[in-house]
Amino acid sequence: MAKGVTPKSEDYARWYTDVITKAEMADYGPVKGTMVIRPYGYGVWESIKEAFDKRFKETGHVNAYFPLFIPKSFLSREADHIEGFAKECAVVTHSRLKSAPDGNGVVVDPDSKLEEEIIVRPTSETVIWSMYKKWINSYRDLPILINQWANVVRWEMRTRLFLRTSEFLWQEGHTAHATEQEAREESIQMLDIYQEVLEQILAIPVLTGLKSEAERFAGAVDTYCIEAMMGDKRALQAGTSHYLGQNFAKAFDVKFQTENNTEELVYATSWGVSTRLVGALIMVHGDDKGLRLPPKVAPVQIVIIPIIKNDNSLDAIEKFLEPFLTELGEIGIRFKLDDRQKISPGFKFNEWEMKGVPIRVEVGPRDMEGGTLFCARRDTGEKKSYEIESAATELGQLLDEIQTNMFEQALKFRSENTFTVDNYDEFKKQINSGGFIRCGWDGNPDSEAAIKKETKATIRCILLNEKTKDKKCIYSENPAKHEVIFARAY
Amino acid sequence: MAKGVTPKSEDYARWYTDVITKAEMADYGPVKGTMVIRPYGYGVWESIKEAFDKRFKETGHVNAYFPLFIPKSFLSREADHIEGFAKECAVVTHSRLKSAPDGNGVVVDPDSKLEEEIIVRPTSETVIWSMYKKWINSYRDLPILINQWANVVRWEMRTRLFLRTSEFLWQEGHTAHATEQEAREESIQMLDIYQEVLEQILAIPVLTGLKSEAERFAGAVDTYCIEAMMGDKRALQAGTSHYLGQNFAKAFDVKFQTENNTEELVYATSWGVSTRLVGALIMVHGDDKGLRLPPKVAPVQIVIIPIIKNDNSLDAIEKFLEPFLTELGEIGIRFKLDDRQKISPGFKFNEWEMKGVPIRVEVGPRDMEGGTLFCARRDTGEKKSYEIESAATELGQLLDEIQTNMFEQALKFRSENTFTVDNYDEFKKQINSGGFIRCGWDGNPDSEAAIKKETKATIRCILLNEKTKDKKCIYSENPAKHEVIFARAY
Repeated sequence: MAKGVTPKSEDYARWYTDVITKAEMADYGPVKGTMVIRPYGYGVWESIKEAFDKRFKETGHVNAYFPLFIPKSFLSREADHIEGFAKECAVVTHSRLKSAPDGNGVVVDPDSKLEEEIIVRPTSETVIWSMYKKWINSYRDLPILINQWANVVRWEMRTRLFLRTSEFLWQEGHTAHATEQEAREESIQMLDIYQEVLEQILAIPVLTGLKSEAERFAGAVDTYCIEAMMGDKRALQAGTSHYLGQNFAKAFDVKFQTENNTEELVYATSWGVSTRLVGALIMVHGDDKGLRLPPKVAPVQIVIIPIIKNDNSLDAIEKFLEPFLTELGEIGIRFKLDDRQKISPGFKFNEWEMKGVPIRVEVGPRDMEGGTLFCARRDTGEKKSYEIESAATELGQLLDEIQTNMFEQALKFRSENTFTVDNYDEFKKQINSGGFIRCGWDGNPDSEAAIKKETKATIRCILLNEKTKDKKCIYSENPAKHEVIFARAY
Repeated sequence: MAKGVTPKSEDYARWYTDVITKAEMADYGPVKGTMVIRPYGYGVWESIKEAFDKRFKETGHVNAYFPLFIPKSFLSREADHIEGFAKECAVVTHSRLKSAPDGNGVVVDPDSKLEEEIIVRPTSETVIWSMYKKWINSYRDLPILINQWANVVRWEMRTRLFLRTSEFLWQEGHTAHATEQEAREESIQMLDIYQEVLEQILAIPVLTGLKSEAERFAGAVDTYCIEAMMGDKRALQAGTSHYLGQNFAKAFDVKFQTENNTEELVYATSWGVSTRLVGALIMVHGDDKGLRLPPKVAPVQIVIIPIIKNDNSLDAIEKFLEPFLTELGEIGIRFKLDDRQKISPGFKFNEWEMKGVPIRVEVGPRDMEGGTLFCARRDTGEKKSYEIESAATELGQLLDEIQTNMFEQALKFRSENTFTVDNYDEFKKQINSGGFIRCGWDGNPDSEAAIKKETKATIRCILLNEKTKDKKCIYSENPAKHEVIFARAY
């Protein structure tokens, strides 16, 4: 643990994996492509979950749980949907094991072969809309505003912890509405909530916008997204909110009786964020010393490390700290007194730095004499002594300051690496040194495909507040239909 | 919804399913054996989860997440474990679908056949201990106190919502310790937490005890359990806590270096409760009018139904209610004002009665004149008027009273249906009319098996505070080794 990580500048991908491993955020599972989220990583996910769940409930959503297993035939009900998801799925074909004939271990019982194969959900639109078909009859049953926290599986051969694993955790909201307008408003509302949580809780600035047809969710009419810039200047899609129109209602024949006694197809949205956000958090805020966690998601916000000189000194330090720790608890600060014996303070410093704890407090004989606490900020490295009487309150304020500062740092980094470009040569040169490129696009999928082929950059989003006046398409030089952000992405 | 349920006395199993369906707790999923937990049922599960999670964390446990997929070979590592779990599992054999050659839907791509089949976890001991092998080196790494909230799959042909479904939700704790004593204390501590939550939050009295060898968890040295009596006098195993000894450490070769520099196998526990508890809640407290929910788990604790006479009266009622509702919110009571138009108060009464809301408040013109609220308790049916000024506080107290009363009612029912019996004829007669039988047992698996064969009753638990002095085995009439509870069980 005390050993460092590969520097970011040397090998970003290795730095990323090193941080995750050394900060004990996650590990590889025994089946290829699977991930174990270790307690420290899961603690971060719990904070993120809570921030979203609170906002979902405040806007009238309720949680439910739909089955992991989907009949194979469901996937092909919605034509676009199958195109997007059919390919890489875990397929259950049998339901029983039996002892191996040679007495060595177990084998699959061939007699247990299923009549129809079952798919482990890659997303739940199909199974949910098959239920909505049963539950929706009249306008009185609408809207349905359901969210679920669940695991989903999309077979992956190349694993990258938190970013690309066969199984991951996420939330998926699935709503049903009587009108197009209400459904569209819902998809925008959820996009706003995603932006709020990313920026205020994860301290990650995001751009919001619409996906181009090529990047749209399979089965959606419109896909809205939040896009963030990682520490290597690549883009990461951090969440999506889809207006699905009547596509799934058509596929599953979900109609309702209106107030005027006519029959109409239901309008739908779906929206999701996943444990991928933990990966984003690491890449946006981490440095060569390891993680840096924004206080609002940090499992430990303040770590206190006693400088123990002899057997009696821990007792004395604990007594000295008592009123301070009590106050921290009362204010609701998550703190940890690292009183492990036989481990040096230096080792502990490195360990908690690696784990990204926002504030480290050191306390030894000299601090006790002076009635002070020596504190170090993880975000800036700044060190300062605080009077112990007022330290709890002041450190509480410092946590807020760190939260804001981390957002500002990330925003500054993104600004410095976002470029407005108006000719294709410059575009190609810029894309090679990384960053977001803001430019015009003629709306033609062919220009988009040509750019992707040549530069590996994709349209991350069509800006919602776009300015297309006098702009030309970066590729075709035809009048721009949209203002977009291009980048290489995860 | 307004229509009633099959009376308990007529057909208990149908009553149970009717209540679940009509109270919108759950529904059947499209794949046989799967269940959809609807928002109202999931709301109850969220309250239960929160009560457990809080106590797990207070006792030093942390949450994590392990993969859904387990290599087939892992299941046969621990010899007893495979015996117990090998049989009914979902087996993943392929990782890809492709378009059907006839253009109709999708088929499994035979080229995607996996080298080793993958099992969808029926429980996670094996995958977790394969990770502990990586994480545990020294006594400094112990104890590990990890819990996970997850879905698990055990193939079931006969479905019963919440009680027996292929997939269910649960928590599974998996701890690793340096000494047998510490591990044994952990398994007892968790049993105590289970009892506390069941009795204080779910208002379900439980017996605690040890399982006989025949009923023990596959791979455990000792299985402790909590057993509850359902409304039809049958027993339900509501949670288990296992002392696993060194069985899994042996199977996965998990050793640690002790403080004295020797090498030793790690000691383990595991413990779990599941969504089955929602089934228990329904069966213990429900009546012929539907659900009755203890206030501490009720998604809605107080429902307020305005008696609307004309277009203006809803406004007037809302104004009248405003200070009362504000106060309910401040006290932290979960309430709902059912202001749906075009639905009669009578219909609403039935609906919320079916959904088991602990207190119903009615408010119409007469109540407004008198400055009172007319309230009905779901547990006793009792009705009473409250002065609106003090109603919020008094109803808060009434919720506590209802919580206690529901526990007392369930305890009384169990007492009345628990019989101390000392001869086998009486035993057989009694078991046919239901209930728990307290008696001696010689500790011989043959007596236990003979009783089960003849009466379908099993040993639910060996009582922890057993009194065996002068007792004889109910079957063999040999001296009793244990005092046990026999019952027919779910």
